[in-house]
Amino acid sequence: MKLILKKEDLNKGLQTVQKVAQNKNNNLTSENGLLIKAMNDVIEFQANDYDMGIKTIVPGIIEEKGEAFVANPYLMELTRKLPSDEIEITKKDADTQMIIKGGKLKFECLTMNPNDFNEVEILENGYSHFTTTSVVLKDLIDNTSYACATDVARPIFMGTYLDVQGDTISMVATDTHRLALKTAPLDSPIENPLQAVIPSRLLTEISRQLPTDIPEAVEITAVRSYLAIKFGNVYIRTRLIEGEFPNYRRVIPTDFQCSITVGRSEFTGAVERASIVAKDAQYNVINFVFGDGEIHLMSQNPDYGTIEDYVACQMTGEPLEISFNGKFILDILKHCHDDEVVLNTRQNSPMLVQDKGNEASVFVVTPMRTK
Amino acid sequence: MKLILKKEDLNKGLQTVQKVAQNKNNNLTSENGLLIKAMNDVIEFQANDYDMGIKTIVPGIIEEKGEAFVANPYLMELTRKLPSDEIEITKKDADTQMIIKGGKLKFECLTMNPNDFNEVEILENGYSHFTTTSVVLKDLIDNTSYACATDVARPIFMGTYLDVQGDTISMVATDTHRLALKTAPLDSPIENPLQAVIPSRLLTEISRQLPTDIPEAVEITAVRSYLAIKFGNVYIRTRLIEGEFPNYRRVIPTDFQCSITVGRSEFTGAVERASIVAKDAQYNVINFVFGDGEIHLMSQNPDYGTIEDYVACQMTGEPLEISFNGKFILDILKHCHDDEVVLNTRQNSPMLVQDKGNEASVFVVTPMRTK
Repeated sequence: MKLILKKEDLNKGLQTVQKVAQNKNNNLTSENGLLIKAMNDVIEFQANDYDMGIKTIVPGIIEEKGEAFVANPYLMELTRKLPSDEIEITKKDADTQMIIKGGKLKFECLTMNPNDFNEVEILENGYSHFTTTSVVLKDLIDNTSYACATDVARPIFMGTYLDVQGDTISMVATDTHRLALKTAPLDSPIENPLQAVIPSRLLTEISRQLPTDIPEAVEITAVRSYLAIKFGNVYIRTRLIEGEFPNYRRVIPTDFQCSITVGRSEFTGAVERASIVAKDAQYNVINFVFGDGEIHLMSQNPDYGTIEDYVACQMTGEPLEISFNGKFILDILKHCHDDEVVLNTRQNSPMLVQDKGNEASVFVVTPMRTK
Repeated sequence: MKLILKKEDLNKGLQTVQKVAQNKNNNLTSENGLLIKAMNDVIEFQANDYDMGIKTIVPGIIEEKGEAFVANPYLMELTRKLPSDEIEITKKDADTQMIIKGGKLKFECLTMNPNDFNEVEILENGYSHFTTTSVVLKDLIDNTSYACATDVARPIFMGTYLDVQGDTISMVATDTHRLALKTAPLDSPIENPLQAVIPSRLLTEISRQLPTDIPEAVEITAVRSYLAIKFGNVYIRTRLIEGEFPNYRRVIPTDFQCSITVGRSEFTGAVERASIVAKDAQYNVINFVFGDGEIHLMSQNPDYGTIEDYVACQMTGEPLEISFNGKFILDILKHCHDDEVVLNTRQNSPMLVQDKGNEASVFVVTPMRTK
């Protein structure tokens, strides 16, 4: 193999597959590392593990075909610092060493047998398929998957539910204490509805890869217990979580006693301050009194003391006293975008939070019992 | 007690004493926390532990005299976020609670008995005393103390040696593998020479406090096994390390076989790249061949491969092959400031490194045996 690549193309290829290539949870050699493959007319970078496979094509000159299987966590750090914009990569088929040259630097990089690398399979004959854009998909992921559970007790809640029906795509995540739902329209309706629970940690990695400067078409295909995601030069295959995701629509409350409109940044500031001492206590409990013209916040820590604060608001309905985990409220506010947010509550019931001018995002948070 | 302070003054006071107030190594209640004292005509913040005591005065209005002993790691985070520029602090002598008010926020902060706080003693009758500036002292600390040892096996090397004689102030630190020495002139000569070993971790904290935007006079007094450091509104008392610091002048080599002048940033880049795979190995060994017109660097990692690189240089004397710990070389280069650095070496002997145009800083590093 002999390749000539621009440094930025090499780095882009490595960066795309890096996270999967260095999954620390893998002990299998064949699931660590990455494959540089120039067997046909393109230069491909691949990484593959049980959960996720990824491959990408980068531009460059193939002077001699070949492939190399490299497991080196420092490869990217090195190539980023190479003292030249043009990089030469060579490997003789009989050698175990791949030579990377940039400027006067020469790196003799140890490689493994490429036959030991499981190439990323291309999933075909999917039962369902749709197209969206990288911007829409990233927005859906970023505004929902954070709300998933992190403990392995109920694996289904470690995933984010993708629900595509008609001309609507929805994503929803919950840890049973709070729920985040976001919906977006599809340009062309899906033929067969698609429901799948995707591990949220894979979505985080997919979100990182999705370009947002220019929206790019993303093709998603469901095949058995996998999902294939294609955009630009990148192809990703992710495992799905098996099991049934609960009916999230039933969880979203509709009957309220009190509706509050409050400035997002003022409310965020007050909840942040009230969380400062409360976060050290077991649950970061903040007590809210939603009143006419004012929200009263109160938090306590037996070791440090009590914080009280007030934020101006508009209220319709009846005043209400209720407690929430401050971290959950802050998580929600971080994902709101309008100047004002609307809080719809009822005594001892989950609270619905939405941007004032935008109903595509829905947040639900259950109150805490404090007495 | 009733005080009116500007938020920035309150935060400055807290920031000054914070690190000492929250020393995690302390289990003694009386050594954690800080004292707010307005018993006379000034508002004082104090923190004190076995190693270091610090106090500072902040401007503000004393409406009622008093004091409060607070141990709350979140106090500063809260006061920084208070929604007002004017802060009111009140505490009734009989109460254990101190009330902090800013805007609509009220924090009832639990306090301890101020009699349990050991006030920072003012050291008097020092055996030696000198004056320098905050800029000079910070520069001396930052360019030497990093080279000290971190393991407790030989406590003397965990300190930085302060050596003040005549009109010269020197600081020097070593872990026996490398040494950093920096010297500066004093405006007026010291009467009695001062030698002291200051724990380097205390110097780091002192350096953090020293103002550099405008040079401020710093008065240093040695009293028994303590040093008192005074600048602006800040008074610091530090413990010294007992024992004799070795004669550092003997360690500095003077007889060389080869002298190399090399561009600092080019050399730094090459050492950084050669360290990428070597740093994962046991000692980050880099092999250098100092030749006529070129330095050849080579590093190896049995798991990942070999890196070779070249940097242009000027040489006088004879070519030389020698190995060093790349981390030590990078540490030195980080503390060089000129465009070019000079490396003076001799086979199997410590190397002397200096900025080309500045001999106030001296770095020594011992080679590694690789064969």
